[in-house]
Amino acid sequence: MRNTPQSIRLHIALFGRRNVGKSSLINALTGQNLSIVSETPGTTTDPVLKAMELLPFGPVVFIDTAGIDDRGALGQQRVEKTLKMIDRCDVAVLVIDNRWDHYESELLKRLQTQRIPTIVVFNKSDQHPPDLNLVRKLERQKIPWVKTCATSNEGINALKEQIMRLAPDKSQIQPTIIGDLIHPGALVVLVTPIDLEAPAGRLILPQVQTIRDILDHDAFCLVVKERELKYALAQLKNPPALVVTDSQAFLKVAADTPQNVPMTSFSILFARLKGDLTVFVQGALAIERLKPDSHILIAEACTHHVVGDDIGRVKIPRWLRQYVGAPLNFTHVQGHDFPEDLSRFDLVIHCGGCTINRRLMQSRILKCKEAGVPITNYGVTIAYSLGIFERALQIFPEALEAYKQEQTF
Amino acid sequence: MRNTPQSIRLHIALFGRRNVGKSSLINALTGQNLSIVSETPGTTTDPVLKAMELLPFGPVVFIDTAGIDDRGALGQQRVEKTLKMIDRCDVAVLVIDNRWDHYESELLKRLQTQRIPTIVVFNKSDQHPPDLNLVRKLERQKIPWVKTCATSNEGINALKEQIMRLAPDKSQIQPTIIGDLIHPGALVVLVTPIDLEAPAGRLILPQVQTIRDILDHDAFCLVVKERELKYALAQLKNPPALVVTDSQAFLKVAADTPQNVPMTSFSILFARLKGDLTVFVQGALAIERLKPDSHILIAEACTHHVVGDDIGRVKIPRWLRQYVGAPLNFTHVQGHDFPEDLSRFDLVIHCGGCTINRRLMQSRILKCKEAGVPITNYGVTIAYSLGIFERALQIFPEALEAYKQEQTF
Repeated sequence: MRNTPQSIRLHIALFGRRNVGKSSLINALTGQNLSIVSETPGTTTDPVLKAMELLPFGPVVFIDTAGIDDRGALGQQRVEKTLKMIDRCDVAVLVIDNRWDHYESELLKRLQTQRIPTIVVFNKSDQHPPDLNLVRKLERQKIPWVKTCATSNEGINALKEQIMRLAPDKSQIQPTIIGDLIHPGALVVLVTPIDLEAPAGRLILPQVQTIRDILDHDAFCLVVKERELKYALAQLKNPPALVVTDSQAFLKVAADTPQNVPMTSFSILFARLKGDLTVFVQGALAIERLKPDSHILIAEACTHHVVGDDIGRVKIPRWLRQYVGAPLNFTHVQGHDFPEDLSRFDLVIHCGGCTINRRLMQSRILKCKEAGVPITNYGVTIAYSLGIFERALQIFPEALEAYKQEQTF
Repeated sequence: MRNTPQSIRLHIALFGRRNVGKSSLINALTGQNLSIVSETPGTTTDPVLKAMELLPFGPVVFIDTAGIDDRGALGQQRVEKTLKMIDRCDVAVLVIDNRWDHYESELLKRLQTQRIPTIVVFNKSDQHPPDLNLVRKLERQKIPWVKTCATSNEGINALKEQIMRLAPDKSQIQPTIIGDLIHPGALVVLVTPIDLEAPAGRLILPQVQTIRDILDHDAFCLVVKERELKYALAQLKNPPALVVTDSQAFLKVAADTPQNVPMTSFSILFARLKGDLTVFVQGALAIERLKPDSHILIAEACTHHVVGDDIGRVKIPRWLRQYVGAPLNFTHVQGHDFPEDLSRFDLVIHCGGCTINRRLMQSRILKCKEAGVPITNYGVTIAYSLGIFERALQIFPEALEAYKQEQTF
């Protein structure tokens, strides 16, 4: 459990005004002195993330935020960072000290718009019991509430239980990679070319995660390089349930895999895992509608060091320029700098998102939808550039349908 | 290449008196300002390790050491740390500034005793050309020498070439895990139980490394949990070339694997990789000769946090006490604290050594041999405790022979 990546943990964010006791509540929830707590309003500046085990649920991340009533130019920046956390949280805790005016109303409205399950916490209940009018109002709106006192631990367990009750199903936080596509006892063939870029003595993480997911679903797999695939398949009494290959080897693998055997790529599996495969397929097809000087946003979740033949900076822009046969405009963003205004873009191409949680990727997809901008990701773009959609999408009928519909235009 | 673990890099150590220019030489060899260089003798205190690529050889580690003529109580400690590096280096560079007396003679003798290929470097050759008598003496002993000037880069390439010439074959630095046991096109079955200790979404490193080694040797593998093994084997037209399983599942896997199929455990493969399987098998058999109050050294290569059911601190001592049916004495060492005097021990049990290089493990085995103390490792001890030697050693005739010989006593 200690090694669970942050990206597949349940994200729980605490929001509220300055000095309502958000940090003290997180300390009480986690039993650790993780946030700086003081009597001066506005001690938490940048959001603080803390990973822990919340039993019996499992791995979670608590997000401590700055007060939504923070002031001044700097305060305004902090409020913006706080509001960005709405995109990342699976559950929201709105902490109040009995006051309820436009700060609370507006925040609740934003959370409801984004469909974040929300709990209202009346903290510092030793100083003032919950306002009964407010309680009635929340109950009418079916918003759960809890009365707590962070210093005496009152209500902390009730809050934990309420969080667990509202938490989305684990399958939404981290759906299965491949388990839902196969039955127990199925044999999956994984084709893993070993090229010069692969670190010595290792496999790349998506391959390892896929093997593990297959074993977790009581199935098993044959791991083979593309060169030995044909020979390996000949060793089997029956055809495998599914063949998954690295995109780079797709055409060779397709030639060596019998037509009646379902086949897809790791990039398609992982696009589905974090994002929305159908949306991404539609997004890739929007490449056909790019024009000279179209504007493309390339978004990367992590701030990695840019290397010579960088996929987002070099490879995809080069291929797109060649494909469109004209100059294009690219904007690159990294980390959490996803633009609020997407209207000026004709297409968004996102990285695989291995370091961010599914909620944040879903938020970004939603923002693109609302702005009417198509979105796709690196893996799906590459799959499209290689012309493998028809075969690789066969086991995903909805995405295949989306592809075929666009083809008929 | 960037990700190559330190443990499988060629280790090159530079030895010599203070202020002969060892750090400057490493800077010249690596082209980086890695060591602190000064005119004051004795600037390098603890040995400094620097990983880099030495083309065309590949991944290496340079070890910069303190002067062997260091003085005072602290100096003596530094000299001891320096001499310990002899156990870890694959190639030694003895740097001199034309002086040669007991410091150099003694160091050379130690290096020769441990059969470390050694180059003598006449550094600062701009200040004094190599002493011809000394050169003749080295040549009579067939010890290669190079003339260098670290500040002008003179001789640096010649030194690199000489290091490459003396470097042991890559197969000695990191032999294959499994590749020599199988032929191209072979099908290997890997049985990987998923227990609660396995981190979510991952496989443990030895399993990943074994898969990669199989692919690197143009073979392929079926990865399966122990529960599905029987069913998976039934899917194959021909029996597999080899079955490898986690030790914990050995008995169940042995029952489900046809008798004519070779079978072994990951622990046996990895004991062979780092150590000497035959010596370790003999070492495990020495458990039979333990008596009440026998003294056992448990050596761990890394200083990991000791957990509740720690294998070296708890599991192996508990099993040994039960097996011998009497109290035993255990001494635990971690990191590089391997005792010089082993005579008081009846048995040494080493960890798998995944973080240290093969040379250091071989040095420790040699020290045990010289002291007449049997040595084994965790994996082989566990395999022995489970009673699986006969079957798991079948593909290693020498180790099996050693086992059978002891059995006849």
